[in-house]
Amino acid sequence: MIYITRRETFCAAHRMCRDEWSDEKNLEVFGKCSNPNWHGHNYVLSVTVRGEISEELGFFINLTTLKQIIQEKIIDKVDHRNLNTEVSFMKGKIATTENMAVAFWNELKPAIEKYGAKLHRVRISETENNTIEYYG
Amino acid sequence: MIYITRRETFCAAHRMCRDEWSDEKNLEVFGKCSNPNWHGHNYVLSVTVRGEISEELGFFINLTTLKQIIQEKIIDKVDHRNLNTEVSFMKGKIATTENMAVAFWNELKPAIEKYGAKLHRVRISETENNTIEYYG
Amino acid sequence: MIYITRRETFCAAHRMCRDEWSDEKNLEVFGKCSNPNWHGHNYVLSVTVRGEISEELGFFINLTTLKQIIQEKIIDKVDHRNLNTEVSFMKGKIATTENMAVAFWNELKPAIEKYGAKLHRVRISETENNTIEYYG
Amino acid sequence: MIYITRRETFCAAHRMCRDEWSDEKNLEVFGKCSNPNWHGHNYVLSVTVRGEISEELGFFINLTTLKQIIQEKIIDKVDHRNLNTEVSFMKGKIATTENMAVAFWNELKPAIEKYGAKLHRVRISETENNTIEYYG
Amino acid sequence: MIYITRRETFCAAHRMCRDEWSDEKNLEVFGKCSNPNWHGHNYVLSVTVRGEISEELGFFINLTTLKQIIQEKIIDKVDHRNLNTEVSFMKGKIATTENMAVAFWNELKPAIEKYGAKLHRVRISETENNTIEYYG
Amino acid sequence: MIYITRRETFCAAHRMCRDEWSDEKNLEVFGKCSNPNWHGHNYVLSVTVRGEISEELGFFINLTTLKQIIQEKIIDKVDHRNLNTEVSFMKGKIATTENMAVAFWNELKPAIEKYGAKLHRVRISETENNTIEYYG
Repeated sequence: MIYITRRETFCAAHRMCRDEWSDEKNLEVFGKCSNPNWHGHNYVLSVTVRGEISEELGFFINLTTLKQIIQEKIIDKVDHRNLNTEVSFMKGKIATTENMAVAFWNELKPAIEKYGAKLHRVRISETENNTIEYYG
Repeated sequence: MIYITRRETFCAAHRMCRDEWSDEKNLEVFGKCSNPNWHGHNYVLSVTVRGEISEELGFFINLTTLKQIIQEKIIDKVDHRNLNTEVSFMKGKIATTENMAVAFWNELKPAIEKYGAKLHRVRISETENNTIEYYG
Repeated sequence: MIYITRRETFCAAHRMCRDEWSDEKNLEVFGKCSNPNWHGHNYVLSVTVRGEISEELGFFINLTTLKQIIQEKIIDKVDHRNLNTEVSFMKGKIATTENMAVAFWNELKPAIEKYGAKLHRVRISETENNTIEYYG
Repeated sequence: MIYITRRETFCAAHRMCRDEWSDEKNLEVFGKCSNPNWHGHNYVLSVTVRGEISEELGFFINLTTLKQIIQEKIIDKVDHRNLNTEVSFMKGKIATTENMAVAFWNELKPAIEKYGAKLHRVRISETENNTIEYYG
Repeated sequence: MIYITRRETFCAAHRMCRDEWSDEKNLEVFGKCSNPNWHGHNYVLSVTVRGEISEELGFFINLTTLKQIIQEKIIDKVDHRNLNTEVSFMKGKIATTENMAVAFWNELKPAIEKYGAKLHRVRISETENNTIEYYG
Repeated sequence: MIYITRRETFCAAHRMCRDEWSDEKNLEVFGKCSNPNWHGHNYVLSVTVRGEISEELGFFINLTTLKQIIQEKIIDKVDHRNLNTEVSFMKGKIATTENMAVAFWNELKPAIEKYGAKLHRVRISETENNTIEYYG
């Protein structure tokens, strides 16, 4: 069993808030991340998949394939976007990195399994100091 | 003459656009950075000042002082903010990193000169691949 | 189950040695790290906690809370300190990164469990090339 | 149980190909990585070993020892080398990072176990975006 | 006057040698970098251009344009290539990073000046420890 | 004219203080960096030299030579040392990074000029956020 991790980046705006709460209540719970005028990040996304090495090829999933899946399923939909208002699979969810990790997992899993690989981990760094990991 | 650089980070939303242009025209000129629903970055700001070392102290400006100036003049005003709509010294300017570098210079210069130091360079990295520098 | 990692840094002096051994014996066992006049590092501490996402909030522990716990329990006690002589929870222990990881774990665990989260991992990088991890 | 990771780097040339295939077939399967005139990387190798801390020493394997094992068993044999033609333990294998991780594991394991430690993970980053991990 | 730097990466094989010298002589002068079977690097290329900000646009050269110039003039010709044998503008030159910086400058300068910008600096990092800069 | 930069690291203890001042006075002026029990850093030293490329060799100073000069003149004397008490060329000076940069310059300059190169810059990062540069 071998693990392969592909790192991608994207830039997006977001806001942490519950729509039914007042700005004051959101500020109290989510702090400056609830700013109604948005803020944003350079997110770093690392997707890890696992599988058995093919003796013929020396790998189990082509990196180009893995890169294309991440590009199509995630980056094309979130890069230079507003995570609260423009990303279909985040609709109805608070735009925390935690919720993003779970949502990204659900988007990536079927596409990766088509290639006989297993999705192992979705890791998202919001800043160089804050990182979320989800293993399904 | 010695040069000292302090690195700080901030997270903000922005959009590149001319308000009097249509979304189509902005998209044509500024690309995906013109998304009307905003996007954002983890900006890295590096401020370099220069001066002569004091023999008594072994430095010419206290790093804590430099850090406080940057915090008060810049970070407090841009971190977790919308650069287009919430930052007074960016009003009326397109929120490019180029314009930010010049505006930051103008905000920092008088405060740093009060301490007998010279502002040498403002450097802003928008992403790990894109960096702007301004020397006045 | 989701994992969140907060990265902090601190600067400290230390020395690897057994007090009852001669400087020669310490040098033989611990190498240049046993220098009796101390040396030091910019340590990078990454603390990982795990829990279930609250549907109401989109996270299970507020990053500000996690940051405050690490600041109060660890950083305030080790930053700009001598790890051999000034840190109560390192008293009587050789100031290796291995022992620090275990000691940090013991300091952090009760504080993190008060918030319903589980401490998952303490990771300390002494240099960019040397990293210790402890999972309890 | 404590985990210690040592990071080393090496520069090498390689090519991904099956010798019995034509250049066209190799290009189709392995893309530009199959260039018959070689290309190369700054590989980053991180070796993680685990063990119980000795109370007398505050560690379970001396970092200098670990560094020497990696130097002798791996770095001396791959640094500034051609991975396809000059590395005995890669002979007959496609020079993918996946195959390298497994081969490195087999080279390192007996040497590390001599010191009473367990090899836990071999991680190789081919670029800042592509990383392979093997746990035996 | 504002400075903008675009960072790109490429992977290539090379060898430092004078063809008319013996392998022994090359080894004596160039060390392990003269290995006749090649080695390689993940090169990091940073190109800095300077100009006056357009008031209408908030920049003086579009980053996408700058990126395309670097891609077309350099990356397409060196990425996953052998710098000694496959790169036309390196023919007849020893494949040192110093010579590469000068050659890259000559390739980039006319293309950048077409856009009214000035090429300021070509910087190439061969490894994280070795960097070359050329200012024309 | 070409510029070459070599990056090295060292770990050392220091304290910022004037010996004739009380601990209180030192604390007031130098803050927590004046802790009488020392603290330390992983310093990153980057030395830049400049010269004309030799057509015969493709460089003007061998990187191995540059590395050896830095090792012998600086790293061997400061690594795993106490900068206040164990480094001859820092005697009588406050152990600030500013004073270190000037002292390193004076140690390196004659050795580098012996090879027909010019010392251009000494850069020292005390932490990832604080950097000093000296150009002579």
